[in-house]
Amino acid sequence: METGIEPIGVVRGHRDARRDDDWDTDVSTIEIDQRFPPEATAGLDDFSHVEVVFRFHGVSDDQVTTDARHPRNNPDWPKVGIFAQRASKRPNRLGVTVCRLLSVDGRTIRVQGLDAIDGTPVLDVKPVMAEFLPRGELRQPAWSSDLMRGYWSTDG
Amino acid sequence: METGIEPIGVVRGHRDARRDDDWDTDVSTIEIDQRFPPEATAGLDDFSHVEVVFRFHGVSDDQVTTDARHPRNNPDWPKVGIFAQRASKRPNRLGVTVCRLLSVDGRTIRVQGLDAIDGTPVLDVKPVMAEFLPRGELRQPAWSSDLMRGYWSTDG
Repeated sequence: METGIEPIGVVRGHRDARRDDDWDTDVSTIEIDQRFPPEATAGLDDFSHVEVVFRFHGVSDDQVTTDARHPRNNPDWPKVGIFAQRASKRPNRLGVTVCRLLSVDGRTIRVQGLDAIDGTPVLDVKPVMAEFLPRGELRQPAWSSDLMRGYWSTDG
Repeated sequence: METGIEPIGVVRGHRDARRDDDWDTDVSTIEIDQRFPPEATAGLDDFSHVEVVFRFHGVSDDQVTTDARHPRNNPDWPKVGIFAQRASKRPNRLGVTVCRLLSVDGRTIRVQGLDAIDGTPVLDVKPVMAEFLPRGELRQPAWSSDLMRGYWSTDG
């Protein structure tokens, strides 16, 4: 039998509303659900970074984009399809972010630079390995670099 | 209302069974579901790489690890928690892989180096932006580098 997808934990942080920018200094905690033993995170602290799969909760079905739109509704940027952007109002509302691992204590994982607000359901935590980074040279359009300019700013 | 998580597409490829290694030359196709308009991928081909969120299907509930085990059951490697490895037999069975984008034609996305077998349910496709790569120096344990040695090999 293969069951559905359920949260394995939750983000505890100090932002309770989504904001576009300034995420890099944010420290938050991932609390892994009590149904997992503390050993579920054994050895994780040998990694410097984790990849967190989470749900953009609080986005209702009728807010989800399925076609093309201007990122952040900015008409200076081209209309691009929802699968060509990382906006939260997307089918399945899945977020995937790499952040720094600060400490691990059993089911409690402290991270820095996770762009998820307090109460965010966490679906998975994976260690970041160099071998899973992009292979070959990276290319991306100018609008995406513009959009990301303040995202990890430390002015938050 | 916020509904659950459903596949947005499927992987079509030439591997019909999971294998540990030699994924890098594999070319496969992501077929986006017909309920999305072709515009859902508009502008995606301005990116060199995509990040694919998928489900390791065919893994039954009783195969899922929730504590610590030797990766690939290799006793030479330490017992590490399921959230400290990227094994498929994990809670929620979510895979996240960055692969090269070869071409986009409406709902049809051709990629290279996606470690997902034929029939894999796809939950999301995101463009890879340099700004979402790890910030700061990466550190990982020796066992993970050992394990990954042949993963992207081109002997497949």
